[in-house]
Amino acid sequence: MKPNFSMPLKGIVSPLVTPLIDNDTLDVNGLERLIEHVIAGGVQGVFLLGTTGEFASLSYKIRSEFIRLSCKFVKGRIPVLVGIADSAFTESLNLANKAAEYGADALVITPPYYFESGQPELLEYLQGIMVKMPLPLFIYNMPVHTKVMIAPDTVRQAAEIPGIIGIKDSSANLAYLNQVQYLLKDRPDFTFMVGPEEIMAEFVMMGGHGGVNGGANMFPKLYVDLYQAAANHDTEKMMLLREKVMQISTSIYQVGRFGSSYLKGLKCALSLIGICEDGLAEPFQRFNAPERAKIEQALERLNYKELL
Amino acid sequence: MKPNFSMPLKGIVSPLVTPLIDNDTLDVNGLERLIEHVIAGGVQGVFLLGTTGEFASLSYKIRSEFIRLSCKFVKGRIPVLVGIADSAFTESLNLANKAAEYGADALVITPPYYFESGQPELLEYLQGIMVKMPLPLFIYNMPVHTKVMIAPDTVRQAAEIPGIIGIKDSSANLAYLNQVQYLLKDRPDFTFMVGPEEIMAEFVMMGGHGGVNGGANMFPKLYVDLYQAAANHDTEKMMLLREKVMQISTSIYQVGRFGSSYLKGLKCALSLIGICEDGLAEPFQRFNAPERAKIEQALERLNYKELL
Amino acid sequence: MKPNFSMPLKGIVSPLVTPLIDNDTLDVNGLERLIEHVIAGGVQGVFLLGTTGEFASLSYKIRSEFIRLSCKFVKGRIPVLVGIADSAFTESLNLANKAAEYGADALVITPPYYFESGQPELLEYLQGIMVKMPLPLFIYNMPVHTKVMIAPDTVRQAAEIPGIIGIKDSSANLAYLNQVQYLLKDRPDFTFMVGPEEIMAEFVMMGGHGGVNGGANMFPKLYVDLYQAAANHDTEKMMLLREKVMQISTSIYQVGRFGSSYLKGLKCALSLIGICEDGLAEPFQRFNAPERAKIEQALERLNYKELL
Amino acid sequence: MKPNFSMPLKGIVSPLVTPLIDNDTLDVNGLERLIEHVIAGGVQGVFLLGTTGEFASLSYKIRSEFIRLSCKFVKGRIPVLVGIADSAFTESLNLANKAAEYGADALVITPPYYFESGQPELLEYLQGIMVKMPLPLFIYNMPVHTKVMIAPDTVRQAAEIPGIIGIKDSSANLAYLNQVQYLLKDRPDFTFMVGPEEIMAEFVMMGGHGGVNGGANMFPKLYVDLYQAAANHDTEKMMLLREKVMQISTSIYQVGRFGSSYLKGLKCALSLIGICEDGLAEPFQRFNAPERAKIEQALERLNYKELL
Repeated sequence: MKPNFSMPLKGIVSPLVTPLIDNDTLDVNGLERLIEHVIAGGVQGVFLLGTTGEFASLSYKIRSEFIRLSCKFVKGRIPVLVGIADSAFTESLNLANKAAEYGADALVITPPYYFESGQPELLEYLQGIMVKMPLPLFIYNMPVHTKVMIAPDTVRQAAEIPGIIGIKDSSANLAYLNQVQYLLKDRPDFTFMVGPEEIMAEFVMMGGHGGVNGGANMFPKLYVDLYQAAANHDTEKMMLLREKVMQISTSIYQVGRFGSSYLKGLKCALSLIGICEDGLAEPFQRFNAPERAKIEQALERLNYKELL
Repeated sequence: MKPNFSMPLKGIVSPLVTPLIDNDTLDVNGLERLIEHVIAGGVQGVFLLGTTGEFASLSYKIRSEFIRLSCKFVKGRIPVLVGIADSAFTESLNLANKAAEYGADALVITPPYYFESGQPELLEYLQGIMVKMPLPLFIYNMPVHTKVMIAPDTVRQAAEIPGIIGIKDSSANLAYLNQVQYLLKDRPDFTFMVGPEEIMAEFVMMGGHGGVNGGANMFPKLYVDLYQAAANHDTEKMMLLREKVMQISTSIYQVGRFGSSYLKGLKCALSLIGICEDGLAEPFQRFNAPERAKIEQALERLNYKELL
Repeated sequence: MKPNFSMPLKGIVSPLVTPLIDNDTLDVNGLERLIEHVIAGGVQGVFLLGTTGEFASLSYKIRSEFIRLSCKFVKGRIPVLVGIADSAFTESLNLANKAAEYGADALVITPPYYFESGQPELLEYLQGIMVKMPLPLFIYNMPVHTKVMIAPDTVRQAAEIPGIIGIKDSSANLAYLNQVQYLLKDRPDFTFMVGPEEIMAEFVMMGGHGGVNGGANMFPKLYVDLYQAAANHDTEKMMLLREKVMQISTSIYQVGRFGSSYLKGLKCALSLIGICEDGLAEPFQRFNAPERAKIEQALERLNYKELL
Repeated sequence: MKPNFSMPLKGIVSPLVTPLIDNDTLDVNGLERLIEHVIAGGVQGVFLLGTTGEFASLSYKIRSEFIRLSCKFVKGRIPVLVGIADSAFTESLNLANKAAEYGADALVITPPYYFESGQPELLEYLQGIMVKMPLPLFIYNMPVHTKVMIAPDTVRQAAEIPGIIGIKDSSANLAYLNQVQYLLKDRPDFTFMVGPEEIMAEFVMMGGHGGVNGGANMFPKLYVDLYQAAANHDTEKMMLLREKVMQISTSIYQVGRFGSSYLKGLKCALSLIGICEDGLAEPFQRFNAPERAKIEQALERLNYKELL
């Protein structure tokens, strides 16, 4: 099973937020605006239903509809990657088949995230599911939420399973990701993507293929430019652009008190910029006026209009 | 919203395993045998789709079918509690409505288990969902899997939400559960149930209402007798019966290498006893012959036939 | 190597706070008062330099002096157990030798707590140290602080090492402690003590030997009476007395915001009761006036004078 | 209090292993060879008594002697940084004074590592200790061992305390370190060093000041060259040299089964290379023959003689 895009996948992939009016209602116009916005910004792909997309909080009906609409709006201009992570394999498979039906290009999966698997169980699981997958698959390492760090050697073995074409790592542990990449150095086709935008530039400069960075919902051009500077080894430009990314990371994402601050801040900013509604799925609620005011100030300090 | 059973609920509730032929096929005959087996053993309720029921690994179709069949087989003889935990609230609600439709008596929910909530977020979540719940609800504290310990004070506040009628705690931290119970000492109607069977007896003896103990799938009478001994403060009998429970806990549940050993051992034993198939849902696989032989030996050392 | 007290050790052991005027100055008079207070309250032993004793925060000079003075004040009336936990084995050994020199009766050790050991490494470590220990040794399971849960099977094997005579478990996971006790059921001489006072009564009633409970610094008689009620299977009295313990646990220990609340609250209460100074060793500081007022109110709600 | 070296400190600092014949005996000749080896390799400093130096497992006598001998052997050729981390502040202070007396240049401290502090407690602790410190101090973030992640904002505030001159981060979370560095972007004198050698190159290229890398005990020149390539933005050379570092990281450090594999592998390799003995302090033991053979093979596959 080969992807219909050239491998490895390179550049910035936007992990789309799921624009919501309320817990169970998509902001369809917002979604269309968001997709046009990120494509205009130059991203090389979109990733639906990742952590930033609140996949775990969304009903299957909404997830399915979100895949359908996104594929429709993207119109094949860039690859569409679809998160199918679930605690239940059958539901992952259902989503995978929906994704294939609607024209998506690849799938992304985390380890099951209620029960914690041992590494051999995890490898066996990946072997079992790939037999049934209708599209190529990226592995998604996200230990904060799944409780499991996919061991470098497990990734190495998983990479031998036909159809598994890359990894997205959101551990923020770059030593880990570098180890994984080293173990797979004879696999130039295997894609290595990094989640945390704070380390995307250096990762790309040292041979990583790109970033799946939440901030690329708001300011896709910034992240695309940063990727390009890194790919070109233009360190001066990298330093300049990364400073903006760090400013975002230490302001917009850190207004609230809990782990949900990132999501709430990102959606609040998208709403202030005029892209889409800032509704969140349960168990989270959008920011209230005081936090919203702080996000507005953070955007202004960023001179955000120049970033659009 | 009042439950149709007297409060607090007392005694042993079997957290039913979900008998499976394979990942997505129920062993319907096994389920019927299992339900007759536990009712014959004297349990005061069944809990469907808990951790022991592998809820998180099952498709919604299977979960729904399992609720329907279980309610049909139970025929109102004892209360049926249904786990509706999910990372997505809408799916929890869907399951809750199915449960009500099929005649279940109460619901059980953990905190959302992909995103980790802060305590105020958790309380707000519980307030939000109860408005829509068709049946009374038990809170289910299961920090190993959900990453969240529901703080004693959060439980105390949640207990004021109409319709929330009890807690099942599977943290194994009895100091915690005792603190919770103390904070709610003016609520004689609120049910306190403990998951780990290794501490059920002392918990009941000191005022706890009962246990939701996995072993009560295999040997319901043993756990019911232990409950009775504890409720009667018959310590001699408690010691004797608890020794059997500890033997089970340190043999049948500890054959494998990973956290899944408990589930695999329990299902393997049920299959050897002749109750139901030992299929597991992904990401887990049933024990192979060598482990199965160890479970068989463990059963024999238990003189398990006398426990049936 | 046999202890000079009968085995198993039974009853309440006070894990003494280390009375401090400031970070590095003992409150010697306070220590003498404290020791007379707990002996008058009927405790069966004192445990110096445990977690409640802030051992890890104290200089070796202070630790050594504290052992010397305590042994002097106790005058052989009850066994003196001395915590020798350290990240460095040689320092543990130094403390052990001091303890023997000053007339202590037994030693208590946690796993090394900077580097995390594997279970085989831990067993090997215990084998290695026992060869050099001048006194019998209790194992101390304290996973919150040491990051290591001593596996039940490791305890079982450690119990075969000559000189290792018991375990103090502060995990609050009573299922674990029950498993350990079950695995050692053919060792009637091995002592099982529980740290968290919230579960001491049920543990003793079901065959545990006693508690090493911080509250027994303040109100030794309460814990001794509770132990006796449990040992006598007098459940009515247990319930009554345990209610006081739960009131302490949910008030005095929970005034601050961090894990240090227990220590700060306990020392503050001891100071208010007139036993000793409430200085803490770095990195902690005593409560300020507002928290102190809350502790005072909590003591009054307890009618604490009746407990003395 | 100003350091006697120019700030920020730049380049590779070797976190010296502590050469041991056995648990409590220094390999003095090995230490002298080691120091000559790393200075000849071009490192800009040595860091005594860090995690790689097994500080937590060493008696104070050995620690003190190790500081004395190291300062003597270094003879002022490069800065000597001394780890004074301890669970007890007074012992940290004792070590600090020894370090000053023997002619060391700076100190390094982790948060106290038995009790876990809240962030405000940690900041207060740092303020308290700096008043008494005889030398400038680096903060050392090492959450795996200390259980505490020093929050970016805590570092920012700590950096205002006179005498605190830099941070060594061993979290491997480069997103975190980048955030810290961004928050302190107006402090060009503050030193940022990274522990994990797998990410040193990219960190330096993007503005980090250097690495405190365990591998620089074995092959100091490799790490110095990699640092230089990164500082010069010579990406081609960086890629080439980093490949060697990744080979070391995925072979020599990963022969054992536990967290101690890194230490055991590093010391074993140093012994095979002929630098020093491979004794370890309790609770760890040196590798046996089978593991030693694997380390030897790993060294050969590295063509290690070319790296010396």
